[in-house]
Amino acid sequence: MKNGQIKRKVKLAGMGRVLAGDAITFHGETRYRLLPGETLLDLVCLAAGRALEQADREIGDVDCIVCAMATPLQAIPCNAALVHERMAKGTEIPAMDINTTCTSFISALDVMSCMVEAGRYETVLIVSGDTASAALNPNQQESYELFSDGAAACVLTKAEQEEASEIIYSSQRTWSEGAHDTEIRGGCGLLPVFSMNEENKVDYYFDMKGIKILKLCARKLPGFVEDCFKEAGIRRDEIRLVIPHQASKALDIIMPRLGFGEGTYMNRVWAYGNMVSASVPYALCEAIQEGKVQRGDLILLMGTAAGLTVNFMLLRY
Amino acid sequence: MKNGQIKRKVKLAGMGRVLAGDAITFHGETRYRLLPGETLLDLVCLAAGRALEQADREIGDVDCIVCAMATPLQAIPCNAALVHERMAKGTEIPAMDINTTCTSFISALDVMSCMVEAGRYETVLIVSGDTASAALNPNQQESYELFSDGAAACVLTKAEQEEASEIIYSSQRTWSEGAHDTEIRGGCGLLPVFSMNEENKVDYYFDMKGIKILKLCARKLPGFVEDCFKEAGIRRDEIRLVIPHQASKALDIIMPRLGFGEGTYMNRVWAYGNMVSASVPYALCEAIQEGKVQRGDLILLMGTAAGLTVNFMLLRY
Repeated sequence: MKNGQIKRKVKLAGMGRVLAGDAITFHGETRYRLLPGETLLDLVCLAAGRALEQADREIGDVDCIVCAMATPLQAIPCNAALVHERMAKGTEIPAMDINTTCTSFISALDVMSCMVEAGRYETVLIVSGDTASAALNPNQQESYELFSDGAAACVLTKAEQEEASEIIYSSQRTWSEGAHDTEIRGGCGLLPVFSMNEENKVDYYFDMKGIKILKLCARKLPGFVEDCFKEAGIRRDEIRLVIPHQASKALDIIMPRLGFGEGTYMNRVWAYGNMVSASVPYALCEAIQEGKVQRGDLILLMGTAAGLTVNFMLLRY
Repeated sequence: MKNGQIKRKVKLAGMGRVLAGDAITFHGETRYRLLPGETLLDLVCLAAGRALEQADREIGDVDCIVCAMATPLQAIPCNAALVHERMAKGTEIPAMDINTTCTSFISALDVMSCMVEAGRYETVLIVSGDTASAALNPNQQESYELFSDGAAACVLTKAEQEEASEIIYSSQRTWSEGAHDTEIRGGCGLLPVFSMNEENKVDYYFDMKGIKILKLCARKLPGFVEDCFKEAGIRRDEIRLVIPHQASKALDIIMPRLGFGEGTYMNRVWAYGNMVSASVPYALCEAIQEGKVQRGDLILLMGTAAGLTVNFMLLRY
């Protein structure tokens, strides 16, 4: 299988982030949920506006709008068309969705950096976020108390040769033994909305089998991470900061097993939990704004996603 | 805005297609819908198997599985993870979704050909198909009698320099003035499944405003098509066959206005209607199997999609 040892001269020119407006607490940890009348579309467009501002770009400078989100806002059209309507109506900017659930942002960076490298696009707006609260099951405590609604966005541009910024390695794998460990079975093509009844209603809620996922990760992740470092020719101590998907409280159990000690990675689960596709770009944006990551620093974006999909990307910010 | 004048040395190595099992007729035209117990996942995996067979490849030869579908099978995980589970379980092939609704297949070719060109992947399985029948509104005759459930797939590979096969031009635009002309408002993030009641039930059905779409297309498409031909430096008479999205019976009205006379494009709307994301790859596969397209022929894939998104791609088969 091919992996992404290829370098791509791209730059994260600007990022933005937004949390939903309703802060609630579970056992001392804060979670954010949409206020009445607030929508995820509001949040992603706000985050996108902030990313453009930070990048000193306007929407008209963007060659492609990509929604890297795990869940649809509507079954039709794609999310990016709805973001386009809010932010770019009257323009002709192409809009598309790229989805690998929780690691959609990393996959979209991987894909769109190749398009930028190939000369197909030059400036891409990537937005992530999910309405986790739309399908949380109040009877499944573990997941009900884990997720927040939030959004984050990034302006990806071509980098000049004299700039340090580049993606130096990326790899994705999918282990579909875990395809049903994180899922929403009902509401779409396989089990339509109109088939919902009192008996199968639970199938329309988000369903997470935490222990099964942890076991699959424990079995597969260490080898994957070792392969990536070997192929990339990079050592852990060369990395300034690891931005993992904020999957769950188990982060502090898993990361040390993968060779990442305390303080080498962002753990913000206590602060806002799992924000699905927004987790990685939100934490990255936070790290940049707090000065934890500077231009030229080598960072690692990584995470697991429903699928079970894993993504690993080394980039020089 | 950037367009895709860049050449990509890629080849459609094999294609496959499948119709749902239940043939029904409306006013003498045939439509196909899923039989009880049959799922869209069955169809896309069957089509993918045929594409692999025709390409003389096995699933283990594939570097990436891409679902280029308009609608989700489940809200989580992504469609490609579910296809992976059926076809590639036990492997580590990465799986992702790329979505621009009805033109998802063209967008996926555009995106993945750049990844192949960049050396990120070498062999990509792209599958398309949608469960149109899951959300058709029996009270909206125009759309209820237009759609079929079907699937099509393609193996995209690197082409050797001595082969004629290549993508020579691609362009996508989104005009979100039409974002709500083709949509399913309910069932996902913006209007969750659990918000459905007797009063808003109609919002959970597919809704198409045929006349509005036609008017927007009439205003925008001619200029778009002219721009594409000019940028690509190609004349209409150099094209062996045009494969348009089988949007509706209006195809024979729109295509001549875009300068494509009778016999220069595939019109199969009478035979199976609109198959959403499967329309373009299904008709292309049919044209290849019927000998209407030979290796080295220049073909044009084009179409409109909910969004409103348009795609235009010139490729030498």
